[in-house]
Amino acid sequence: MAHINQIDPFDFVIFGATGDLTMRKLLPAFLRRFHAQEFTEEARLVCVARTALTPEKFRQQTRNALKEFAAETAKDTALLDRFLELITYIPLDALAPDGDWGPLQAELNEPSRTRVYYLATAPALYGPICAALSRSALITPQTRVVLEKPIGVDLKSATEINDGVGQFFPEDAIYRIDHYLGKEGVQNLLALRFANPILEKLWSSDAIAHVEITAAETVGVGTRGSYYDESGALRDMVQNHLLQVLCMLAMDAPASLSGDDLRNEKLKVLNALRPMTPDMVRQNVIRGQYSAGRIDDQKVGSYTDDLGRDRASNTETFVAIRTKIRTARWGNTPFYLRTGKRMAAKSTEIVLQFRPQVWSIFSNTPSPGRLVIRIAPEEGLSLVLAAKDPGVGGFRVRNADLSMSNRQQFKVTYHDSYERLLLDAVRGNPALFIRRDEVEASWRWIEPILTSWREAQSPLEPYPAGSWGPASTRALLARDGALWHEDMLT
Amino acid sequence: MAHINQIDPFDFVIFGATGDLTMRKLLPAFLRRFHAQEFTEEARLVCVARTALTPEKFRQQTRNALKEFAAETAKDTALLDRFLELITYIPLDALAPDGDWGPLQAELNEPSRTRVYYLATAPALYGPICAALSRSALITPQTRVVLEKPIGVDLKSATEINDGVGQFFPEDAIYRIDHYLGKEGVQNLLALRFANPILEKLWSSDAIAHVEITAAETVGVGTRGSYYDESGALRDMVQNHLLQVLCMLAMDAPASLSGDDLRNEKLKVLNALRPMTPDMVRQNVIRGQYSAGRIDDQKVGSYTDDLGRDRASNTETFVAIRTKIRTARWGNTPFYLRTGKRMAAKSTEIVLQFRPQVWSIFSNTPSPGRLVIRIAPEEGLSLVLAAKDPGVGGFRVRNADLSMSNRQQFKVTYHDSYERLLLDAVRGNPALFIRRDEVEASWRWIEPILTSWREAQSPLEPYPAGSWGPASTRALLARDGALWHEDMLT
Repeated sequence: MAHINQIDPFDFVIFGATGDLTMRKLLPAFLRRFHAQEFTEEARLVCVARTALTPEKFRQQTRNALKEFAAETAKDTALLDRFLELITYIPLDALAPDGDWGPLQAELNEPSRTRVYYLATAPALYGPICAALSRSALITPQTRVVLEKPIGVDLKSATEINDGVGQFFPEDAIYRIDHYLGKEGVQNLLALRFANPILEKLWSSDAIAHVEITAAETVGVGTRGSYYDESGALRDMVQNHLLQVLCMLAMDAPASLSGDDLRNEKLKVLNALRPMTPDMVRQNVIRGQYSAGRIDDQKVGSYTDDLGRDRASNTETFVAIRTKIRTARWGNTPFYLRTGKRMAAKSTEIVLQFRPQVWSIFSNTPSPGRLVIRIAPEEGLSLVLAAKDPGVGGFRVRNADLSMSNRQQFKVTYHDSYERLLLDAVRGNPALFIRRDEVEASWRWIEPILTSWREAQSPLEPYPAGSWGPASTRALLARDGALWHEDMLT
Repeated sequence: MAHINQIDPFDFVIFGATGDLTMRKLLPAFLRRFHAQEFTEEARLVCVARTALTPEKFRQQTRNALKEFAAETAKDTALLDRFLELITYIPLDALAPDGDWGPLQAELNEPSRTRVYYLATAPALYGPICAALSRSALITPQTRVVLEKPIGVDLKSATEINDGVGQFFPEDAIYRIDHYLGKEGVQNLLALRFANPILEKLWSSDAIAHVEITAAETVGVGTRGSYYDESGALRDMVQNHLLQVLCMLAMDAPASLSGDDLRNEKLKVLNALRPMTPDMVRQNVIRGQYSAGRIDDQKVGSYTDDLGRDRASNTETFVAIRTKIRTARWGNTPFYLRTGKRMAAKSTEIVLQFRPQVWSIFSNTPSPGRLVIRIAPEEGLSLVLAAKDPGVGGFRVRNADLSMSNRQQFKVTYHDSYERLLLDAVRGNPALFIRRDEVEASWRWIEPILTSWREAQSPLEPYPAGSWGPASTRALLARDGALWHEDMLT
């Protein structure tokens, strides 16, 4: 672990500390990085929530959560004990006019330390919490604030949240988290593209016929029903995660990996997305909702079954979008985005489909090759090429597959996305966080789809759980003479 | 096997039929293709040699050989019996003035059949045998002749052989065999290059810093000592096999896979090789001979030990050559050829080393990637790229390896090179045979090396058995700032 630079002592304050995210992701991530000696016992993790709990009681809850969500690391009970000592708990209703900020002020008694506020509350509270922090003189020049998604539900609400936080923090102290950018497979896009001149030579409409970005889940809506039914797949997955992956995939080379150089290039992609008119939404966007079906040979219920409701829901659990990027690099390449719950496989992956040959000297033509970048569940690459069909008279060609599994190759334990991102926030490296203009550009592109759906009362297309989405999803590609990856024979 | 077109009945006549090649390669290849039903019992395999043997005795020898060299197929004794019935044996001294050609004339009594003469004798006999065939009225319009290597020992002798055969056969009936062209991995070069636009885009000096073509053996000279000591590695491996691989790798796209289209493109490469002057030979060619050493942890003797001789030999068992191809595609890419006996590994492979980045945005620079095309012992591909070093703060890159094993991927039994080539000769497909102008262009390029060695009395550089050749072999690449594949860290 000698390659990790240990971080100076810091104060990390989590608002919404009794929530799922804190217990499942944030504190486990810190435990693992503590185990890796990325920071010392001098760090403080200050957990804030409305619930009246003693620090001891909170630490006990945390201990149980870590044994479940960081089981491997938490087996080291001496380490776990030392880690729990970093944690304090402060009960505080941040919005109450008579909220007592004294204990937090008392805890944060070293103003020269790096201080990070992590807002894991409802987004509507981000502005008010920042206002209260400011009133309580808890914002130092060394303070950053991390905002969890969703940043709004449309452009207007996103702007309001950004304005609310921006009144008290400069933009370069605001870290909007998108855990997809914490994934190795997504970060690897930068290395693949900008450390391999041979790939960058191929990375344009000249060689790439189309691009697919898929984030498919087999799970249903689970316990998130009440949130999800207000949100839907477009807001929950496309506006943030899929558009961020699209940016990492499609952007031009940044001058450096600095936060602004990287994000300037991503912003260019968002701004170059072909804007959606209502007609284009009808032709290029599919919204679906899962009906009952089978997953892994088990019967599963419909979305409304999962919600535990009798009446119908108008929320999409699947969305597929065909779009183009209006740049010299990509203008002639359709990009297909899709995401859904209760799909045929758990798979987050990118497919770059190569253009077919314009002329073949062989007696048959295999499918054009493609590069598949797998992000989940296992990170890896697969390059499908044409090769000679061996052992046969004549000269037939067929597809062959060069592949790599990151896990096998690198023999490392993979980290949860939050491990990287939380420590980047502490270190003050904003490159893998979303800048205000990115969020707003994303909403600017997404909003016409939401509006069009609402105004046109777009019907939901049902798809059976365990399928690849509504039947029309195939037609979206067929128009371009294309097939989804899983429909290709080889 | 439905994809194989069965061949019309044919007569295949082997001169030199009691030799190793016939027993180890030719007849086993025919047995396997017979098993694959590529031809029927109506085919005749007429074996000719000087030895006085009865057909029964020859078939018995053949049976034993097939059980050894086509063991798997020969287990089917019913098949083996049927196959042996295709074989006749005719004792004949083809050069004796009073040789009796009557029995062969009697055997070849269906002039309308495709007829192939396979000359597996000393090359000096090729012309005289053809003359005798002509005198005996054994050359029909449907007759082809297959010539085994070596076609000469220099340009003059090659020309004489070609003239000798060419008096009696038109060039398009002359099939010069190079079993490297029968290898799947070599044929696959055509598919990789001309069925994959993305690879063809990379296939030039723009992207490729250098190319290595290696044919390394771990065996010593074995029982071939008396032949080998007259020949040496340059004649035995480079003039034919390595230059053919070079052609397949470097040629421009042929208009079709027809014999002439393909060979015209290969000829262009041979003619574009930078001619060697004596100075260039000194600087760009290394000749070595193995001394005693270790292979697989076993002590092995020197080349002269293997020859069973006290006195020194001036024959090279290793050669490495640095050359350039004077074309727009390749002018800026050095090509390194090397071959040797008693080397560190048995490996026939091609490495295309990519150019390094001119600028890196990452905090470190991995070795530039490369494409490795393995031909033997296992066919496969390996694409070395840069990828993100996972799980580490910051953004380091390292090499990762996408790979494919043909055997695993295609789940086929691989064929010996001769299987494809013998049946191509019967079918009349000359694409994978060497045309006269190719042989002569190869010798034209090789001969100045031979001459320079002789005239300058170039010393042999010793290398220990089990190494990668003389120490100077590294320096040959170091001049270009390059490393051999096995010297690269990743």
